Amino acid sequence: MLRLYDYRDSGNGYKVRLLAALLDVELDVRWVDITRGETRTPAFLEKNPNGRIPLLELDDQRYLPESNAILCYLAEGTRFFPSERLARSRVLSWLFWEQYSHEPFVATSRYILRHTPVDSPRRAELTWRQPQGREALELLDGKLSRCPFLDQEEPSIADIALYAYTHRAAESGIGIDDLDNLGRWLKAIEALPGFRPFSHEG
Amino acid sequence: MLRLYDYRDSGNGYKVRLLAALLDVELDVRWVDITRGETRTPAFLEKNPNGRIPLLELDDQRYLPESNAILCYLAEGTRFFPSERLARSRVLSWLFWEQYSHEPFVATSRYILRHTPVDSPRRAELTWRQPQGREALELLDGKLSRCPFLDQEEPSIADIALYAYTHRAAESGIGIDDLDNLGRWLKAIEALPGFRPFSHEG
Repeated sequence: MLRLYDYRDSGNGYKVRLLAALLDVELDVRWVDITRGETRTPAFLEKNPNGRIPLLELDDQRYLPESNAILCYLAEGTRFFPSERLARSRVLSWLFWEQYSHEPFVATSRYILRHTPVDSPRRAELTWRQPQGREALELLDGKLSRCPFLDQEEPSIADIALYAYTHRAAESGIGIDDLDNLGRWLKAIEALPGFRPFSHEG
Repeated sequence: MLRLYDYRDSGNGYKVRLLAALLDVELDVRWVDITRGETRTPAFLEKNPNGRIPLLELDDQRYLPESNAILCYLAEGTRFFPSERLARSRVLSWLFWEQYSHEPFVATSRYILRHTPVDSPRRAELTWRQPQGREALELLDGKLSRCPFLDQEEPSIADIALYAYTHRAAESGIGIDDLDNLGRWLKAIEALPGFRPFSHEG
């Protein structure tokens, strides 16, 4: 069975857990507490020198880091990752866009609000991270006015990857209630058979 | 012929130009001046709502944004993008890592130093961007102590993507002369048949 090293409150980890649920793939999840430095131990760094979760361990102790690469691996040959060359590359475009233009603003604002003290100097970053996050979400909303899912009629791993932190935008301090296409798209993902909600409890 | 919208001083654009040279693929390059807002015009935003270069235009006026997705598209079926599922996914891991853990520090430091005035408030960002850039380059150096290229015996698009801004680290104000594995790897890429150097002249 595939093993996933993950942290319960991680949207990046949730991407993988959500796709696995949609594909009905069972994962042996090992929870790692990033707030206690458990991804910076020598044993973990041996598995992933970048010291981050999620990390996929294959049956033969080979490892695959980076949430979006894990999505590509798991989705290979399924309806969530098209095989046609341009369609596939456009899905990858969204995954790269998510890492550079969405996550540093939407996800990092959430991290700062949830995991730093109110007097942390990092709070000052919110003044530029939140507006750029809002800008990214407006771009998404615009794209979703043309097509039910990202560039496609059917959901792909691009939608899964972008759903993860987008649906928690309120926790990032970013309002999205006025973005109607985005709201409709979030509901469409939540209606997929096998959908599993995010949970950071327990 | 494939058309590439690009900016001469862009490392992201250079990734694509370098791979095309190595693959002996001809590109019709259209230079766009990002410093004059030429990627923010309505005509350009129609092509890429994210308003960025590089942007690939296919023969039939379909578009593919994001440098690393363009690399995947061009490298499909070539020796620069392995077909075996895990090897391919590990190449993608490096491409995502580049976007999130390398480019915002190495490339953005370079951008600030080259394209903002010396009294710009953005210069303050260098105090955290440069050390994180150095950290990313040390991680790369460590990986390259085990294998001649990134996770492989042969170069892939992971190497091409990471070469682009790494070899300009001095322009980012980040010293790498002491990172021997990195230096050896830069030379190995520069020795590939068809290699084309970065140029921002002209």
